[in-house]
Amino acid sequence: MVILGIDPGTVVTGFGIISFKDNTFDYIDSGVIKTTVSAPMPERLNEIYTTIDNIISRYKPEEFAIETAFYGKNVQSAMKLGFARGVSMLAAERKNLEIGEYSPREVKKAVVGKGSASKEQVTYMVATLLNLDTEDMKFDETDALAVACCHALKYNSPVASKGNWKSFIANNPDRIIE
Amino acid sequence: MVILGIDPGTVVTGFGIISFKDNTFDYIDSGVIKTTVSAPMPERLNEIYTTIDNIISRYKPEEFAIETAFYGKNVQSAMKLGFARGVSMLAAERKNLEIGEYSPREVKKAVVGKGSASKEQVTYMVATLLNLDTEDMKFDETDALAVACCHALKYNSPVASKGNWKSFIANNPDRIIE
Repeated sequence: MVILGIDPGTVVTGFGIISFKDNTFDYIDSGVIKTTVSAPMPERLNEIYTTIDNIISRYKPEEFAIETAFYGKNVQSAMKLGFARGVSMLAAERKNLEIGEYSPREVKKAVVGKGSASKEQVTYMVATLLNLDTEDMKFDETDALAVACCHALKYNSPVASKGNWKSFIANNPDRIIE
Repeated sequence: MVILGIDPGTVVTGFGIISFKDNTFDYIDSGVIKTTVSAPMPERLNEIYTTIDNIISRYKPEEFAIETAFYGKNVQSAMKLGFARGVSMLAAERKNLEIGEYSPREVKKAVVGKGSASKEQVTYMVATLLNLDTEDMKFDETDALAVACCHALKYNSPVASKGNWKSFIANNPDRIIE
């Protein structure tokens, strides 16, 4: 399956596209959407929405994964993150993608095995899993790839999945004991 | 001009459509968008987006007004309000509407003349300006109409407008002294 991971923000939104099949990860593409900081907020939200919409049209992912929690205390920052996250989820929803939401802790736990892992550890594991040179990548980009990897691992694990047995069984017919 | 006012929320989003011409207000329509509380957030955001998009297609407003500030302290509530506000602004932006953002204080000041006015006072003035029976309306609906009225008053006032002299002059050719 092809997964689009998004690390949303009104200034910089990271995106990463991977495929995951037979327990093998493949890197497809990644990058950042930088909005025009001087532009009004609705224009910037449209830049994010339109770019994600175009990415979905181009790479046709079936699955969409996004970070969901916010640990800051600033209400205005939370609101702005809500703007970016809201329009990102809308882009996926309107293309009928399956949407997974994960907290930063869940992403770290899935990818590094430790919920308190550092950003560097996450980047290292992303590079390893995807066989990728991440040296010139920003955290927004590697975080987007990390959330996509997290979705792949969670989605394929019967224990950690969010109860979606139907699709698990469909994806793993060999694991049905008759 | 026809103005669509929005009071956004992930549970209930109020909308109000008015026209304002020659200093006269006319009520066109109003209501609330109630999302399916049990549905996942992306679906609910799509309900809000789609309904606003349909309202714009139907009533063809040129202007869009939305409340912008959040005075609460809860970060998760701010994020959720950001979702609803983000997709509402996106709907307007994608239909090329002029977008005005107003704080609750600005709305009260414009409509009642006092930034600290009560919700009841706002409702009373909305009823008076629009010659409307608001008895059966919820605050989400009257607040949406209030933000539309605020936009009409601000937009047409050279003092209070946000420096958009070009459109003021276009709308008020009789006020040019040659």
